[in-house]
Amino acid sequence: MIEPYLNQIRDEKPRIHCIVNSVSANLCANGLLACGASPIMAEAIEEVEEITAQCQGLCLNLGIPSEAKVVAMIAAGKMANEKGIPVLFDPVGVGASQFRMKLAKDIFSSVQVSMIRGNFSEIKALVTGDLSKSGVDVDKKDATSEVEIKERVDMARRCARLTGAIVAISGDVDVVTDGTSSYLVRNGHPMMSKVTGSGCLLSALITAYLSVNKDKMLMAAVASLSMFGICGEEASKAPGSGSYSMYLLDAIYAMHVGELKGEARYEIY
Amino acid sequence: MIEPYLNQIRDEKPRIHCIVNSVSANLCANGLLACGASPIMAEAIEEVEEITAQCQGLCLNLGIPSEAKVVAMIAAGKMANEKGIPVLFDPVGVGASQFRMKLAKDIFSSVQVSMIRGNFSEIKALVTGDLSKSGVDVDKKDATSEVEIKERVDMARRCARLTGAIVAISGDVDVVTDGTSSYLVRNGHPMMSKVTGSGCLLSALITAYLSVNKDKMLMAAVASLSMFGICGEEASKAPGSGSYSMYLLDAIYAMHVGELKGEARYEIY
Amino acid sequence: MIEPYLNQIRDEKPRIHCIVNSVSANLCANGLLACGASPIMAEAIEEVEEITAQCQGLCLNLGIPSEAKVVAMIAAGKMANEKGIPVLFDPVGVGASQFRMKLAKDIFSSVQVSMIRGNFSEIKALVTGDLSKSGVDVDKKDATSEVEIKERVDMARRCARLTGAIVAISGDVDVVTDGTSSYLVRNGHPMMSKVTGSGCLLSALITAYLSVNKDKMLMAAVASLSMFGICGEEASKAPGSGSYSMYLLDAIYAMHVGELKGEARYEIY
Repeated sequence: MIEPYLNQIRDEKPRIHCIVNSVSANLCANGLLACGASPIMAEAIEEVEEITAQCQGLCLNLGIPSEAKVVAMIAAGKMANEKGIPVLFDPVGVGASQFRMKLAKDIFSSVQVSMIRGNFSEIKALVTGDLSKSGVDVDKKDATSEVEIKERVDMARRCARLTGAIVAISGDVDVVTDGTSSYLVRNGHPMMSKVTGSGCLLSALITAYLSVNKDKMLMAAVASLSMFGICGEEASKAPGSGSYSMYLLDAIYAMHVGELKGEARYEIY
Repeated sequence: MIEPYLNQIRDEKPRIHCIVNSVSANLCANGLLACGASPIMAEAIEEVEEITAQCQGLCLNLGIPSEAKVVAMIAAGKMANEKGIPVLFDPVGVGASQFRMKLAKDIFSSVQVSMIRGNFSEIKALVTGDLSKSGVDVDKKDATSEVEIKERVDMARRCARLTGAIVAISGDVDVVTDGTSSYLVRNGHPMMSKVTGSGCLLSALITAYLSVNKDKMLMAAVASLSMFGICGEEASKAPGSGSYSMYLLDAIYAMHVGELKGEARYEIY
Repeated sequence: MIEPYLNQIRDEKPRIHCIVNSVSANLCANGLLACGASPIMAEAIEEVEEITAQCQGLCLNLGIPSEAKVVAMIAAGKMANEKGIPVLFDPVGVGASQFRMKLAKDIFSSVQVSMIRGNFSEIKALVTGDLSKSGVDVDKKDATSEVEIKERVDMARRCARLTGAIVAISGDVDVVTDGTSSYLVRNGHPMMSKVTGSGCLLSALITAYLSVNKDKMLMAAVASLSMFGICGEEASKAPGSGSYSMYLLDAIYAMHVGELKGEARYEIY
């Protein structure tokens, strides 16, 4: 029963402050509009606190990082903590450079993050501090035997316990955990990995869902991952990877207006 | 009879210098190409004057602002004034922070702006200096009773008289005025608000139309708002908000090649 | 027989580091994913060397330039030279400002570029140092008589001999040369010029193809220009310029999965 988590957004129309990157900024903003939320992008240190203070959620994205942008993320994150609004952190390519790893640590040392969403390589890099050299894409060794699912759940739990955040590892089977309760989400489609910024988009959407479900964030995260996977399944009618991103947004919009069909497939691990 | 204002662009193929933001840069550039103009994006202080001097119009957009970008906007705006080419200013989210308000004032104190296009909240913030806390989206209180239309026309006129610019407030009913003559434009579609940067796109398009109609800018503004609204109506065949932006660009292109159907609905107020 | 050059990418899934601009970053990344490569965008000086060192190709794009971005390009380019991976340079709008010309010279004085792709105006500006005032778009005087084709081939050869790079001039007839052997590619469609960043996208794709064909880069360049032209022909079914960019990506994806039809049309000059 994921609908209640999603429908809430129609009534509240939460404003989400995104500090994101030039590859996925447009997709994130369009995704938030499609689901019924309202995006605002701002990254100047002179205004981020004031912007965050007016919003219901904050999404921090490590893609195309710079020192200045992370300083702004930290200021925004502190304001979000002060205001009690959810902060999602997407550690894009954190295993790709020492610089990204340092920036992630700077964020964790100053901001209480509510949720982290990444792929297995990224979450593993965060937990172990070990650079996987696999960049922003999922490591090719990833697959989904039961052994590998257990490995992902264990990694997500470790990350959750280290950070105090809900952690989602997205992949062919998604894992979500608060360190105690863990869920698997089996919705989705392989074409999603052919759209640049689809992970960033998912992070922005989760932020919106968290923002209107603050007292039940773990289940809101499960619901949004499942919803996004259903949208990905629906979009698979697209003739190629270019139109796939449009179909994906159309499916999110259909979800928003109550026309999305599809079956949520998630389970307690 | 809006066609003459629009067709002019086919012959002159104006080059438009845009200083915009990473969310809507791609959409603005594609919109300008679709309508027959030629976009160039540049924001380094080292080159903006030289770039503007080669162009027929300048579009300044306050989204995702930075001090450095506004310094570049002012340098480009001064060059545009010197060369006698139109300068459009889009005060994106000017009510969302003190920083944006300050930057807008910096621009107005150095550059003679030819036209301003924003939503009601933005124009109201510019006129009153009062931060509405409503960010980049139109304030939810906006609606369209006759009383409210009068309120918008009055606000647009005040803004026009304060700045010496033509002012457009876009919304379900658009208002355009030079402070003396005022028009309402009743074209458009609610889905337009579901595409991020659709306002930025409109501002870029208006700039192109102003650039080839310098002796009749008020009517060129009315024509371009009406044209954009017709494109929005045409695009409403789209199955969702994702594909809507593609359909919108396709409609602009159809207008350019003379295939757009639709009725211009505007009136003197 | 261009297929072998293209298929190679499916097996090797090269990672391509792009330093690009906010207009075309999303399109470049989606194009690389569509063709089977893996994009990573990074431009902070603190990480570009480490990122490049993990990649198989480097694409440097002069659009929306800044001094800081070019410093990062040079650092990344030197690392690419050290690692022996191809470096493609796209001199976007190099004739539009003294600043871009200076930045291009800075790059050439520090980095051995493997390939340059631009339009005729850009390559001419690079060779002659003369600012054409024609900005990022092809100069209107360009056309395709035999005399003009000869002029382009001569200019491309001069550029290749000056820089030691393979040079491609794209247009209605593309020219590719290493300074000795020269090819014409006659695939393509006029609508390609209606999509912003289509040149940037082509440059990113060529980089991917060079990266997996390092011992036969000239023919890989010919193959990728021909392939991109075929995709442009295939996409011409699109109803307008907005959907054209989606159709273009869909065609690249169809090429990747072996479903693209179309005839390569290239010849030795």
